Amino acid sequence: MRKVNIGLIGCGNVGAGVVKWVQKNSDLIEARCNMQLEIAKIAVKNVQKDRGLSIDQSIFTADASTLVNAPDIDIVVELIGGIDEAKPLVISALKQGKPVVTANKSLLAFHGAELFKLAEDNNSDIYYEASVAGGISIIKYLKEGLVGNHINLIYGILNGTCNYILTRMAQNGEKFDDVLKEAQKLGFAEADPGLDIDGHDTAHKTCILASLAYGEWFEVDSIYVEGIRNLELQDIHNASEAGYTIKLLGIIKLNSGRVQMRAHPVLVPSTSLIAKVDNEFNAVWVNGDIVGDAMLYGRGAGQDPTTSAVVADIIDVALNIKCNSANRVAAFQPHKSYSKVLPMPEISSRYYLRLSLEDKPSVLANIARILGDANISIASVVQKESDSNKLPVILITHTAKEADINSAIEKIEDLSVVHGNPIILRIEDI
Amino acid sequence: MRKVNIGLIGCGNVGAGVVKWVQKNSDLIEARCNMQLEIAKIAVKNVQKDRGLSIDQSIFTADASTLVNAPDIDIVVELIGGIDEAKPLVISALKQGKPVVTANKSLLAFHGAELFKLAEDNNSDIYYEASVAGGISIIKYLKEGLVGNHINLIYGILNGTCNYILTRMAQNGEKFDDVLKEAQKLGFAEADPGLDIDGHDTAHKTCILASLAYGEWFEVDSIYVEGIRNLELQDIHNASEAGYTIKLLGIIKLNSGRVQMRAHPVLVPSTSLIAKVDNEFNAVWVNGDIVGDAMLYGRGAGQDPTTSAVVADIIDVALNIKCNSANRVAAFQPHKSYSKVLPMPEISSRYYLRLSLEDKPSVLANIARILGDANISIASVVQKESDSNKLPVILITHTAKEADINSAIEKIEDLSVVHGNPIILRIEDI
Repeated sequence: MRKVNIGLIGCGNVGAGVVKWVQKNSDLIEARCNMQLEIAKIAVKNVQKDRGLSIDQSIFTADASTLVNAPDIDIVVELIGGIDEAKPLVISALKQGKPVVTANKSLLAFHGAELFKLAEDNNSDIYYEASVAGGISIIKYLKEGLVGNHINLIYGILNGTCNYILTRMAQNGEKFDDVLKEAQKLGFAEADPGLDIDGHDTAHKTCILASLAYGEWFEVDSIYVEGIRNLELQDIHNASEAGYTIKLLGIIKLNSGRVQMRAHPVLVPSTSLIAKVDNEFNAVWVNGDIVGDAMLYGRGAGQDPTTSAVVADIIDVALNIKCNSANRVAAFQPHKSYSKVLPMPEISSRYYLRLSLEDKPSVLANIARILGDANISIASVVQKESDSNKLPVILITHTAKEADINSAIEKIEDLSVVHGNPIILRIEDI
Repeated sequence: MRKVNIGLIGCGNVGAGVVKWVQKNSDLIEARCNMQLEIAKIAVKNVQKDRGLSIDQSIFTADASTLVNAPDIDIVVELIGGIDEAKPLVISALKQGKPVVTANKSLLAFHGAELFKLAEDNNSDIYYEASVAGGISIIKYLKEGLVGNHINLIYGILNGTCNYILTRMAQNGEKFDDVLKEAQKLGFAEADPGLDIDGHDTAHKTCILASLAYGEWFEVDSIYVEGIRNLELQDIHNASEAGYTIKLLGIIKLNSGRVQMRAHPVLVPSTSLIAKVDNEFNAVWVNGDIVGDAMLYGRGAGQDPTTSAVVADIIDVALNIKCNSANRVAAFQPHKSYSKVLPMPEISSRYYLRLSLEDKPSVLANIARILGDANISIASVVQKESDSNKLPVILITHTAKEADINSAIEKIEDLSVVHGNPIILRIEDI
């Protein structure tokens, strides 16, 4: 039976998972693939550290580049994350025609185009299922399952930490800060949570999915990003009363040949399937021109789901080695059918606006007039009672242009009867 | 650019979809795969019939076996369904080492093992994504995405017609017969709906998924089947009051090394994601030992979703032709890690029982005693008021053995105070 030697770079949470599961499920993997996967070398910073793995200590090395260059290493699995250290190692492997499996979404979001070109030029593979919603195989689904489809839109719940926080806020009425602190205590959220809660992780993943869908490796900077840090309980509550649930979504849509890409909190109908995706789960809703609507749901991060994706990628690569079919499915096939990005001011959406207004006659009429002058029609208004002189008013609009909303909001903010900053959230009618 | 010639057998609903979409999306497919797909020949019964396709009439032939044997046909796509005509054509193609794409679930459920062996022996491919829940790529997900996972369980909503009927009954309070008649009028249900509503279509698909999960091509007959024909509105209503939704599920579970496979209506918690899968949509819930829970959702039948899967398979096969990598992923890899089927009497489940009891003292006590004697404990009882002397009583049990329930029910039926046949439905706590 053909043996395939794996060189792991990094043996943290996911690396340890890969070692554990490749060993534990080796009989099944051999039976299914007629190949034997062997963890041959593991590069780590601290060679002495006990990682609780039943693997020979001599397999560990501190020298990642020797691992990459070793002739008996068939596949390089990069699991250190970040860019500075990972990038040269991945480049070195690809230049040797050595296939790479990685879970590194930032590396791909920022340098994907360069790495894919290298893989192609050297007839090598780079697989990265674990970089986006690992457990659900969305990358394979887009690249292979939907290969014949033009993609009309993608909605993704791509960050488990944010979805966990939003679920707790909505279901238990807990405040953002309190849930975040608890999530950090439980290890669900990073000590420095900015990458997650400010939406950047979602944006990186959105960038990868949009690029795959539209055949252009988009710049991360072309994605509009808003996080959930400033979300208030009252807006989650108001949304719920109006029949909506707030989710942090990666949104990718085709608009007359141009691609809109954004990552921000959105009100989605509470009856929609994606609104029911709770806690740390990920989901990706896709509409393809042939397949219609589809949704994939599962865990996107954490040791085991990520390991599941990495192991699947390792086997895909190993099959290419066995069949001498490297690059059978290109890591990324640029086709630039749609390379133009729709600027954010030009998107259309429905909007949720929460204003704090002075309790005076014709205040609401003034607001309505400003919106009307900007071609924004109002779908519903709820004016809440209040003990103070500040009345919270919730407006839900029909579809309007982002630019029109922005200019209307500027005018509204200038009114002396408007207190503080208006809260603006977008609505998607999934 | 490499051109791949496709020979279609059958040009009904799906065949016409394949022609239409391969033509319409040809630029995209070429850009993504660096290959040109050409519909080179189509075998049909009636060559003269106008199918509304923009394709040269000379492409049609009445002679399917000449199509299969033609040296310039690279891929045979079998879309006639049924077994008698399809099987010899598929066999002939595979014997020539010619790859086959098929959507034919009955052919595979009954003769899969033989066809897969032929494909392997002749270094050919047989792809069949469209045979089960086409739009969602569940076969690719099981075979490739979850290749490293032991599968603990699968729940599948696999028949769109049944799910449509159940949704209408639950949401609109319409009776089974009425919804079926309307579905037939709208073309959602066949004139002879038995294959769908009696659960056989679900069983065939369950057979395919179980076989892929457990590496043994199971006999269709080893699957327990019950349809939805006798489902009454009052049970859907009672289930709903107790917090459950009734779905027709294919259920596949691993029980201490033995596989249980069944297709029947089930009460699932209304809060579960699978309970929200409405109308003609399909969904497959999977639990793998590495990945944990995941669910794939989308359309499983109909022209376009099936076409999406057939086109993906054609491209997978075409890539194998291009890379000379036939059988890279085996059509089916027998590994027989789990070849033993758990007989139905040995399964455990929770149960919903509806009895019609005479309004006399200690009747319920007698029922409870019979259940208690059979080791079945009752989780809840609802006795409804009634104008007649027949009291409807709904019992929900804790987990019990199917054999114990059956013997208890026999005793209950023998009681003179019990009218008609008790209604028994199983419950899954997803």
